[in-house]
Amino acid sequence: MFFLTPVLVAVVCILIAWIFKNADGRSMEGRKGENRARAQTRPWVDEDLKDSTDLQQVEEDVDDWQESEENVEHIPFSHTRYPEKEMIKRSQEFYELLNKRRSVRFISNEQIPMEVIDNVIKSAGTAPSGAHTEPWTFVIVKDLDVKHKIREIIEEEEEINYLKRMGRQWVTDLKKLRTNWIKEYLDTAPVLILIFKQVHGFAANGKRKVHYYNEISVSIACGILLAALQNAGLVTVTTTPLNCGPRLRVLLGRPANEKLLMLLPVGYPSQEATVPDLIRKPLDQIMVTV
Amino acid sequence: MFFLTPVLVAVVCILIAWIFKNADGRSMEGRKGENRARAQTRPWVDEDLKDSTDLQQVEEDVDDWQESEENVEHIPFSHTRYPEKEMIKRSQEFYELLNKRRSVRFISNEQIPMEVIDNVIKSAGTAPSGAHTEPWTFVIVKDLDVKHKIREIIEEEEEINYLKRMGRQWVTDLKKLRTNWIKEYLDTAPVLILIFKQVHGFAANGKRKVHYYNEISVSIACGILLAALQNAGLVTVTTTPLNCGPRLRVLLGRPANEKLLMLLPVGYPSQEATVPDLIRKPLDQIMVTV
Repeated sequence: MFFLTPVLVAVVCILIAWIFKNADGRSMEGRKGENRARAQTRPWVDEDLKDSTDLQQVEEDVDDWQESEENVEHIPFSHTRYPEKEMIKRSQEFYELLNKRRSVRFISNEQIPMEVIDNVIKSAGTAPSGAHTEPWTFVIVKDLDVKHKIREIIEEEEEINYLKRMGRQWVTDLKKLRTNWIKEYLDTAPVLILIFKQVHGFAANGKRKVHYYNEISVSIACGILLAALQNAGLVTVTTTPLNCGPRLRVLLGRPANEKLLMLLPVGYPSQEATVPDLIRKPLDQIMVTV
Repeated sequence: MFFLTPVLVAVVCILIAWIFKNADGRSMEGRKGENRARAQTRPWVDEDLKDSTDLQQVEEDVDDWQESEENVEHIPFSHTRYPEKEMIKRSQEFYELLNKRRSVRFISNEQIPMEVIDNVIKSAGTAPSGAHTEPWTFVIVKDLDVKHKIREIIEEEEEINYLKRMGRQWVTDLKKLRTNWIKEYLDTAPVLILIFKQVHGFAANGKRKVHYYNEISVSIACGILLAALQNAGLVTVTTTPLNCGPRLRVLLGRPANEKLLMLLPVGYPSQEATVPDLIRKPLDQIMVTV
């Protein structure tokens, strides 16, 4: 009896300890499973985006720099209004211009006027942004060696993406576009535009400044940039080089608060350029009126 | 001695149990803290986006519908090329047109030609999208009652956003724009465009179809839409109604795979419309050449 009691107590206590341990293990596993499901669901979310930046608390106290911006004057808005007929004509012509835009993966090495590049970037810079933070940096790469280094980095990572990271379904979905990890246009295009989003900025006193909705803002700017390129008669293909961001950022000497969002190779189409014979959804499949 | 042994064993075991329990508690707290930091860092990320959709595994087997798309034909690309002088002129004029765009929060109740709305939505629909998934739905609201219901939902949620969710810094950052939770334009604008991103689609057999980079794709389409509206002489303000998505989705009868990304009230500016006297960053602050 005296011998059994401590053994019994020990067994009960070990049982309790085991239950706690197990509960912890189960919840850890559940969480891991959740993360895995999340990663598989959005495989295109760059690993770079999961870095420490997202975890840091960036809200700062009000400072002088922001105080001064608060007091910005409000002025009457001056508007250019067209007669209804002209509005319809302009909107129709704009649609016809943009409807000719295609993602072109065969770009000639012919040089393009750099004044046009200045103008399309200035156009992109007119995009709205959360709290007018303008959280974008456009890096224009013309240098042949730098372009080739960019190609090497992207092809290295893209080969891993296609073979390992993307999964069978994604690779299948891209087959119709005949894309793979060989990106000749990175060498041939006279200009590469690398678009970085600034995940935060800096106030005059060096403190972090929050960039609200920075990815959406920069994507809107890219939409305007694509329209501007099409309007100027240049072609490009919208690419989001998966997991190449950190290496390209370092190559181009961009600061740590900037993350690569898109890369656009820009130029004239090559003589033998082809495009997949895709059609766009008709209006009644993308628009609903209430 | 015989009395002490079971007590000692019990104490040791309780200690072990307590250690396990505590370890679990600590890790839970750490995780909670991390989530809190994340929420505070990106307070503009809609709670709606954290719903179950993100956790579900959507990768599906290859099916016939996708097989057929793989075999799409590739055709020669036909291109409109302008002389260099014209390229420069066109790009300059496009910049000047877009540089006049401002976010206008005072919109007249005057009706606008709906043919123009059709054309600007068709223009937005020419945007590129990940694997050509075209993951967008544009809901055009003209009905006065529905517009007013939208206003009620947004003002209710926005009041909570301003008073509780956004934090002092964000509200301060917005002061210069003189925005608050009263959104008169939701009643006065003749048209509200609610832009939904389809977080996934459906294949012909009803299976889920992955929409790669759907938020970036839809944001690009919004950039083109803003350019198209400006080109037609209409004004708008880019808004992302925080946490209103689910209620607006239900109000408009949109399916669960669609999530509200943006809302654009569209019309002519009202006579007394004012805008903050903001300036845009000059080219050398947004562009770097390598």
